[in-house]
Amino acid sequence: MNRQIVLLHRPDGEPVTADFDLKESAIPEPDEGQFLARTLYLSLDPYMRGRMDAGQSYAEPVPIGGVMEGGTVSVIEHSNHPSYAVGDFVVGRMGWQEYGVSDGTGMRKIDPATKPLSYALGVLGMPGMTAYTGLLNLGLPQEGDTLVVAAASGAVGSVVGQIAKIKGCRAVGVAGGAEKCRFVSDELNFDVCLDHHADDFEDQLATACPDGIDIYFENVAGRVLRAVIPHFNFFARMPVCGLIAQYNAAGPTKGTDYLPQFMRTVLTHRIAVRGFIVRDYADQEGEFLREVSSWIAEGRIKYREHKVKGLENAPEMLIGLLKGQNFGKTIVEIS
Amino acid sequence: MNRQIVLLHRPDGEPVTADFDLKESAIPEPDEGQFLARTLYLSLDPYMRGRMDAGQSYAEPVPIGGVMEGGTVSVIEHSNHPSYAVGDFVVGRMGWQEYGVSDGTGMRKIDPATKPLSYALGVLGMPGMTAYTGLLNLGLPQEGDTLVVAAASGAVGSVVGQIAKIKGCRAVGVAGGAEKCRFVSDELNFDVCLDHHADDFEDQLATACPDGIDIYFENVAGRVLRAVIPHFNFFARMPVCGLIAQYNAAGPTKGTDYLPQFMRTVLTHRIAVRGFIVRDYADQEGEFLREVSSWIAEGRIKYREHKVKGLENAPEMLIGLLKGQNFGKTIVEIS
Repeated sequence: MNRQIVLLHRPDGEPVTADFDLKESAIPEPDEGQFLARTLYLSLDPYMRGRMDAGQSYAEPVPIGGVMEGGTVSVIEHSNHPSYAVGDFVVGRMGWQEYGVSDGTGMRKIDPATKPLSYALGVLGMPGMTAYTGLLNLGLPQEGDTLVVAAASGAVGSVVGQIAKIKGCRAVGVAGGAEKCRFVSDELNFDVCLDHHADDFEDQLATACPDGIDIYFENVAGRVLRAVIPHFNFFARMPVCGLIAQYNAAGPTKGTDYLPQFMRTVLTHRIAVRGFIVRDYADQEGEFLREVSSWIAEGRIKYREHKVKGLENAPEMLIGLLKGQNFGKTIVEIS
Repeated sequence: MNRQIVLLHRPDGEPVTADFDLKESAIPEPDEGQFLARTLYLSLDPYMRGRMDAGQSYAEPVPIGGVMEGGTVSVIEHSNHPSYAVGDFVVGRMGWQEYGVSDGTGMRKIDPATKPLSYALGVLGMPGMTAYTGLLNLGLPQEGDTLVVAAASGAVGSVVGQIAKIKGCRAVGVAGGAEKCRFVSDELNFDVCLDHHADDFEDQLATACPDGIDIYFENVAGRVLRAVIPHFNFFARMPVCGLIAQYNAAGPTKGTDYLPQFMRTVLTHRIAVRGFIVRDYADQEGEFLREVSSWIAEGRIKYREHKVKGLENAPEMLIGLLKGQNFGKTIVEIS
């Protein structure tokens, strides 16, 4: 049998496990020109929260009753496709299920020497490429710049900060809790990492950025963004790849309107704010894989995974991820 | 005697005439290498509100007791400078006063054939160059794009929309009141102009932009910005040169926080938001003057001035300008 996790309800604010359903169905049969692959690893990522909502985004929402979308590493078990053989490892978007068929669209074979294979979903996959393309194309790091990135122990933030260090920047990480912060500063060699739970986080950020902020790589929004605004330098860059702190918000937030303050800073400091998603830079994949692979081999990029076994645990893991309960790149081991 | 208007108090919210003072002093004497010039025209512009506040911006604030800053067209009455002769017309930043001395820094001679000379403060000066450089460098107009610009009868907005038309865009103007809107659509040949006072302004904007918005040239913020956000197209551009609707705000605005909605749109639609000021593009002045002069000569750019006589009226005019009470580029005729 094939087990799948489907979307049962669109969440109202924070998703709950009852928004998902585990379904069983027959293992699909590949047609001519298709292959059947068994999922080894499923990636869980913050963008999935957006796919659970209706409404216009950069991608269509998952339909009610549809299999949750997601990146996967799979092994081919049966092939009617001339370019794929049984035993090949592929990375693609099979979604939250144990088996899938594909005609190869959006699939890429992974070198079986890649250890672990799950890196193809993280530092050598979508999150790593988000970090690489966003930082280099939009962040434009220069030697001596100060960069701030949140979720700094996570799949994207950890790579952003380490590439910034390679480019000669001061890297200021933000993470949730002392353990993650120690990892970011001690293992990942950021210059400093601040706990966004601290009462005096805003003051700590000011102290950590004595020369202001040249690049704010935005993946969280919320309190971190508000704390960053007063410290932007002239001509700072702000690539925007995620807004995890506001994904669960249902409707507009009451309280202070921070848009006028933000726009005033954009104007007076001539900030470049730019949203992007990784597929905008699809043509840079080869360069990304070459360069980041060699940085990993040289020990200049370190990387941590948060692995859990069993497809049935994916909903709870995603819910936890959206609350910052993961520590490293979240991966579900399927079989 | 030289008459000057100085800043007496930093305004608390909207400026009032009591924030300014009219001072009389001796006409200054030019030293060796300087000239004395008599002010003919003083430009009033929204950015002046920012100079009245303390706090970091792209320029130093006017000190308390200091002469208000401003662009001027002047005629030279006495010269100890080898490159300037009596009778030369110059555009520069003499400020709110009837006479000034200069060593030529930041001054440019105006061709005496320029009619009227005050155009050097508007369509052929700082506001026109703000429109030209912001639209062409950051707005990146493509044939068939839809552009929205507010203050569309004003010095910057009117030029933005007309250049957008020259580049093959649909130009949607926003202005305050039926008379200005008629001028923008009938005289300036925008495709449509909407009154931002209308109760159903948001609906009118949606109707006016059936294919979404590719360029929002931001010079007002407030209600217009909030109305624009839902209509941004993918990869839209938003050059930010002014925020007149929020200049008088003292401190953060209470109510709904629009920053999360704005950031969500920036991310999902990959919007490029970029603050700029005209002097960032100082090297494009020659090209700007050549190109816009020829568009004016060909009748492709039309332009309206709102002139008032007497330096003593400048404070009231600036206060009115910040409320949208001007109709065209505001110029004070000094003598």
